[in-house]
Amino acid sequence: MSKTYKAAVIGAGSGGLTLAIGLAGFGHDIALIEAGKVGGDCTNVGCVPSKALLHAAAAGLDDPFGYVRAKRDELNRREDHEMVEHDQIDLIRGHGRLTGRSGPHVVEVTAPDGTVVEVSAEHVILCAGSRPVEFPIDGLDPARLLTNESIFDLTDVPSKIVLIGGGAISLEMATAFRDLGSEVEIVELQERLIGNDDPVVSSTIRAALETRGVRVHLGTSIERFDGTTAHLGNGARIDDVDKVLLAVGRTSRHADLGLDAAGVATYERGIVADSWGKTNVDKIWAVGDVTGNTLTTHGANSIGRRCIRAIALPLPNVGEPRVQANAVYSRPEIASVGITIDELDALPTTGRVRYEKQLGDIDRGFTDDREHGVVVVDAERFTGKILRAAIVGPGASEMIGMFTMMIDHGIGLRKLFGQVHPYPSYSQAIGLIADEFAGDTYRSLPREWLAMMRGRIARRLRR
Amino acid sequence: MSKTYKAAVIGAGSGGLTLAIGLAGFGHDIALIEAGKVGGDCTNVGCVPSKALLHAAAAGLDDPFGYVRAKRDELNRREDHEMVEHDQIDLIRGHGRLTGRSGPHVVEVTAPDGTVVEVSAEHVILCAGSRPVEFPIDGLDPARLLTNESIFDLTDVPSKIVLIGGGAISLEMATAFRDLGSEVEIVELQERLIGNDDPVVSSTIRAALETRGVRVHLGTSIERFDGTTAHLGNGARIDDVDKVLLAVGRTSRHADLGLDAAGVATYERGIVADSWGKTNVDKIWAVGDVTGNTLTTHGANSIGRRCIRAIALPLPNVGEPRVQANAVYSRPEIASVGITIDELDALPTTGRVRYEKQLGDIDRGFTDDREHGVVVVDAERFTGKILRAAIVGPGASEMIGMFTMMIDHGIGLRKLFGQVHPYPSYSQAIGLIADEFAGDTYRSLPREWLAMMRGRIARRLRR
Repeated sequence: MSKTYKAAVIGAGSGGLTLAIGLAGFGHDIALIEAGKVGGDCTNVGCVPSKALLHAAAAGLDDPFGYVRAKRDELNRREDHEMVEHDQIDLIRGHGRLTGRSGPHVVEVTAPDGTVVEVSAEHVILCAGSRPVEFPIDGLDPARLLTNESIFDLTDVPSKIVLIGGGAISLEMATAFRDLGSEVEIVELQERLIGNDDPVVSSTIRAALETRGVRVHLGTSIERFDGTTAHLGNGARIDDVDKVLLAVGRTSRHADLGLDAAGVATYERGIVADSWGKTNVDKIWAVGDVTGNTLTTHGANSIGRRCIRAIALPLPNVGEPRVQANAVYSRPEIASVGITIDELDALPTTGRVRYEKQLGDIDRGFTDDREHGVVVVDAERFTGKILRAAIVGPGASEMIGMFTMMIDHGIGLRKLFGQVHPYPSYSQAIGLIADEFAGDTYRSLPREWLAMMRGRIARRLRR
Repeated sequence: MSKTYKAAVIGAGSGGLTLAIGLAGFGHDIALIEAGKVGGDCTNVGCVPSKALLHAAAAGLDDPFGYVRAKRDELNRREDHEMVEHDQIDLIRGHGRLTGRSGPHVVEVTAPDGTVVEVSAEHVILCAGSRPVEFPIDGLDPARLLTNESIFDLTDVPSKIVLIGGGAISLEMATAFRDLGSEVEIVELQERLIGNDDPVVSSTIRAALETRGVRVHLGTSIERFDGTTAHLGNGARIDDVDKVLLAVGRTSRHADLGLDAAGVATYERGIVADSWGKTNVDKIWAVGDVTGNTLTTHGANSIGRRCIRAIALPLPNVGEPRVQANAVYSRPEIASVGITIDELDALPTTGRVRYEKQLGDIDRGFTDDREHGVVVVDAERFTGKILRAAIVGPGASEMIGMFTMMIDHGIGLRKLFGQVHPYPSYSQAIGLIADEFAGDTYRSLPREWLAMMRGRIARRLRR
């Protein structure tokens, strides 16, 4: 190969596409290497088909799975075509692997037909994504076992579907399959659903799903199948199981990338990379699921943009990454932003406050007879700066943007106080929390200030 | 009367309740005078029953109007009870009227039975609200004519309902009655729906409603009825009309408040009051619809809070009121914030930019097959500070909060650039607009800065 690209991007999912298109926009020649489908998990087996199924199911479309595949395939075709036609991007179909030859780096690409070509590039960016964690289940007919990679190829609505795992995928699929008319049961090893979020979120979404007829088994797992009967560790059984979705987590696709040859460091969740995508090897970068830092499309996109800046612009690498909200498009939706619940629990309680507002207690929740919905905010005392916020409710994925903005711009509940929210929107819950905060702290400003300072000192000592 | 209240509040709607409860919270004795129902229009004939009807209709409840009345009456009972039981508030039922006797001010209250009592108070706060503009329609059986004050007393779903006016009430009722199965036709004198919003909003909501089968007649009005047939000024006719909703606007209830006796100044839209509720007469205040400044519950609440501060706290009256977003709970929802469309049109085009993003062009719009939805932003060049923003789409009333926050805190599109929106939320349209803005202006920062400064100077010269 004579041509040396500015960058070879391995993987054309949301991270890889962001990087290829972004760097090409700066006039650079890019090799984009993809072993599977352009668009990656998001377009083909993740966000896009799942949102399409949620829509099709809620709207009662005649052929929901046909709709999902039409949407998925159309977007894949569109993205593939865009890459094929792009003047600055060469789409190379095959499996990319670092060779360890550097200066510039050389990537070996094995095409589906076994042909091997070498690609030279100044930078290599690893965006190989992740895949579902899989394990066999004793006694289960493999034809009944699905992951997010196979579920959207269903043609018939399962009579009963068991969802293993209580995270985002499971909650969205529980919503969609209930709408489609399936019986739905969730089996989660932890004692609560969506264990990486606030316990109040867990109990709220559980109640909402149960009200819709979803059965939830917590703190247990399926030990074995006997025909179509699942036997759970806690002694319970689920009869007449039609399909089983394995949705217990995702694992980085960093094996077989030639990382050892190139000397790229890894850890248990994937490739070690900082918030610019920088690995331990000069001009080798890693972005997205493959790093274990982010497991979302918007996360890969956000870090990808920083990586573009680091490669294409002569600017110093300063500035923190923007905070990344998470959303689950179940009904009701879930969204959260800020530090993790584990980080929150590790903080001293001095100097922080917590507010919780049930959506059923605000006027829109009243008119809409909303039983299950909540806004919960953990904030610094005195300033009310947001440590973490979570929402369960309609439009949560849109409402969370206000909290994201508050964190990005250092706007606390004290500064938020007085913001006018349209009546009767669910956002009024946020206004009411700011009111409560102001009411609680105005009464005793000096004491609150002292408590905050004590909290800040305690947090620093903990680090 | 021997007792002198801190304040006599005339009207127990959203403005009056805010003031009574707020001032009572500071330990003051309040007389709350209400001729009709506690809760005012919002609880009894406005936001609450309309949102309840939208919910009942969308959810397909068996007895939608029964649901609406149950919700409305429950909230009214609850608010009434709260006022009756409040230690610091005396709820006085009757029509309040200024007498002109002051120092302290004296209000004459005529009870429903004709009894007259006088109430003395240091401050009088006029929160008498508004009522629908009404006029007779030639040939129309009065039994078929409804306003927002009578529509929620319906017991049967009309076979065909004609909505006169193309504003918020009409768009919400069009949404609800289509869901209920009525044929719906809108007749609006202006050439577009929701004429106080962006023309792009008008065309988008029109297309969305027409797709759902609503017929829209613009630039015309009903000249007369012949039996159940409406004859329009443009020659069109609407046959078999069952009910007609008059929703052409609202007019301040400032007549018969004794304003002349007290010397309180009025103008064509109501009582003249500033953003603190201050009228031309010392210690007489006016808040909410009766001033014509705001015609929303959240507007009355926001100005009411400023009025509480002006009366109860020894602080100087400085600080601008917070910006007030508006929302229409049609499907799709509409929300907008910032300067009015007339103010925007009056600005020189130098120094400002406009971005428009169709929701069908973003990924969630694609998965959800969204034909009609848009985010439109007018902003200052260079900084991207928001002049006006409008959204048509699901969750618009929640999404608008980000723009409200941007205006309140001077965050422009340049500072917004990089905010991570959950994928695939509709809020991504806002992120894409910030991206486009950054792309457009980074290329030529000095020129953009100059254009902005020219625009600022031009705006100042126009004032």
